[in-house]
Amino acid sequence: MVTALPADLSTPCLVIDQAVLEANLRATASSAADRGFALRPHAKTHKCVEIARRQLDLGAVGLTVATIGEAEVFAAAGCTDLFVGYPVWAVGAKAQRLRSLADLCTLSVGVDSPEGAELVGRALGGTASRCLIEIDSGHHRSGVRPADVVPVAAAAARAGLTVAGVFTFPGHGYEPHRQAAAADDEARALATAADALHDAGFDSAVRSGGSTPTAALTGSTITEIRPGVYVFNDAQQVELGTADWPAVALTAAATVVSRSGNTIIVDAGSKTLGADRAPWATGWGRLLEMPDARIVAISEHHATITIPADEPVPELGAIVRVVPNHVCAAVNLADELVVVRYDDSTDGGGAAIIDRWSVAARGKNG
Amino acid sequence: MVTALPADLSTPCLVIDQAVLEANLRATASSAADRGFALRPHAKTHKCVEIARRQLDLGAVGLTVATIGEAEVFAAAGCTDLFVGYPVWAVGAKAQRLRSLADLCTLSVGVDSPEGAELVGRALGGTASRCLIEIDSGHHRSGVRPADVVPVAAAAARAGLTVAGVFTFPGHGYEPHRQAAAADDEARALATAADALHDAGFDSAVRSGGSTPTAALTGSTITEIRPGVYVFNDAQQVELGTADWPAVALTAAATVVSRSGNTIIVDAGSKTLGADRAPWATGWGRLLEMPDARIVAISEHHATITIPADEPVPELGAIVRVVPNHVCAAVNLADELVVVRYDDSTDGGGAAIIDRWSVAARGKNG
Repeated sequence: MVTALPADLSTPCLVIDQAVLEANLRATASSAADRGFALRPHAKTHKCVEIARRQLDLGAVGLTVATIGEAEVFAAAGCTDLFVGYPVWAVGAKAQRLRSLADLCTLSVGVDSPEGAELVGRALGGTASRCLIEIDSGHHRSGVRPADVVPVAAAAARAGLTVAGVFTFPGHGYEPHRQAAAADDEARALATAADALHDAGFDSAVRSGGSTPTAALTGSTITEIRPGVYVFNDAQQVELGTADWPAVALTAAATVVSRSGNTIIVDAGSKTLGADRAPWATGWGRLLEMPDARIVAISEHHATITIPADEPVPELGAIVRVVPNHVCAAVNLADELVVVRYDDSTDGGGAAIIDRWSVAARGKNG
Repeated sequence: MVTALPADLSTPCLVIDQAVLEANLRATASSAADRGFALRPHAKTHKCVEIARRQLDLGAVGLTVATIGEAEVFAAAGCTDLFVGYPVWAVGAKAQRLRSLADLCTLSVGVDSPEGAELVGRALGGTASRCLIEIDSGHHRSGVRPADVVPVAAAAARAGLTVAGVFTFPGHGYEPHRQAAAADDEARALATAADALHDAGFDSAVRSGGSTPTAALTGSTITEIRPGVYVFNDAQQVELGTADWPAVALTAAATVVSRSGNTIIVDAGSKTLGADRAPWATGWGRLLEMPDARIVAISEHHATITIPADEPVPELGAIVRVVPNHVCAAVNLADELVVVRYDDSTDGGGAAIIDRWSVAARGKNG
């Protein structure tokens, strides 16, 4: 099926096309710079020190992370500006760990309640750390309504924290044809909240938004974007129309282990690809070389794939490249990423493993 | 919300109730023994050496694993009888690794095609290893039809492998009210395939089936069962009616980090619980202490939970216990399992961390 994978791969494994990754990193860095947005990529997607360094080399102002554990990994690797974009509940060991992080880097932390802000303030008061207040711009997950931002800021200030602005995640843009509306919601919510902060005498310089589906549509009231998935893209982004196939940098290499009629079973299941499947997805991922095939079932170590009638059914032992639905989930299941460089100058295309990168922040959920 | 979790937990984390685990291990060991079935538990659920040893102490004949990597972990820990219940495609490094395993333990390997059997035979010929032929009993994943078993056995024998019998996974029992029919399918398919093997002059002594939903209904033509989930149970088993709440041994401890109306957000998302959700599931997991609550949305580090109108909404900072939909997926995301013993003799119930077990085979997908 796939002619251009290194022969020494042992499946299943996650493979990065280094040239595509580099192109994705450059495209988003340029786009952010051209439009005047600070870029603070979300490192939860790649969890990988090598990619973080490349993002910073290309002009990112710092990294976003989801957890204290992720922050610890990237701070230890020398990243000096980290934003924990999550309403951290800073008690016990977490309070101590936050305090230690503040000694290693310029630290910003999300808060979305007076109670949470007070705890973060107790942990970080007296340091140069800052907080950003999370706003619900329509995704209805965490975050306060834009009109409710001031009491959170006041609690943060009372606890000795510097309020630097607001952030949101327009996650409702992860639906077909919702990107533009979600980007509008994001811009409006952040502007409303920032104005309220400003009117109450707080700093509102940071207005941080962005996600991969909405990043191209980000409104001008926003100062910073935090996309994550753009480094690799995935089947969700392709099916949403926010990435095309040549921009898919990560696939799971998988072997056909069973075959019957037009159905094949490959050895990348939910423990390799993740089990994410949005209601609008066509299956549990896609095949890079055969976009009309459908992954109709998944279990832990099997993906069941139907091949269209007009396509050759891959033979037993063939290696296919599976594009996960949600690349963040797939990466978090792997211990390493196999970095491959393709050489189009050789006949039929050559491919070589040029590196193996540790998923250094894998499983750092707390 | 939960009064009886140790104070020194840092969320999110997976917590085992040691007494419930022990009761589950004993109940299935006794049930298998009483009914005359060999018990070969599937270790992909727990991936944990400490639990494997307890299963063997209680009479298991050996372990089932899904991958060579899992087999390597348990062989290194001293497990002497392992069955890789998967149609392994034994090329390259995998062939060498299989051969090395055969020096460490009594090894059995699944095959479901003449081509696959030949490769396993090349890797293991001349050792005491055996193969079992996988049968499709109605789940329509890997496995041959019962009538097609002989050509696979013949290829295995030609390649120098000892054929020991047949196995199947009645995965179509993972649907409401389908357990009895799936167990019937399993018994019939294994009997048909074993008869065909026997008539062709092959050994058909092993007829291995079983899964947690069907294990109580296993037919008498079967010699061995391979349930996995029974050690912990999960929300799927509860919603299928094959386990009740007091038999749930593993939960994710999670903190309420955001709260609005009757909705709470906790810090165990899909990177802790997994994203598995069967079409018939009520949500992305359940709350152990509040079974009428519903997990209505999940993202990587957030679960969005609606609390019924007549129940108190947990406060910010409260710790709740989330029962994953599919415990195998949740365990495979964690590096360790926190083992807790509850003391009902103390007022209000006490709880203490008595151990931390490594998820030693986590991520061993190949």
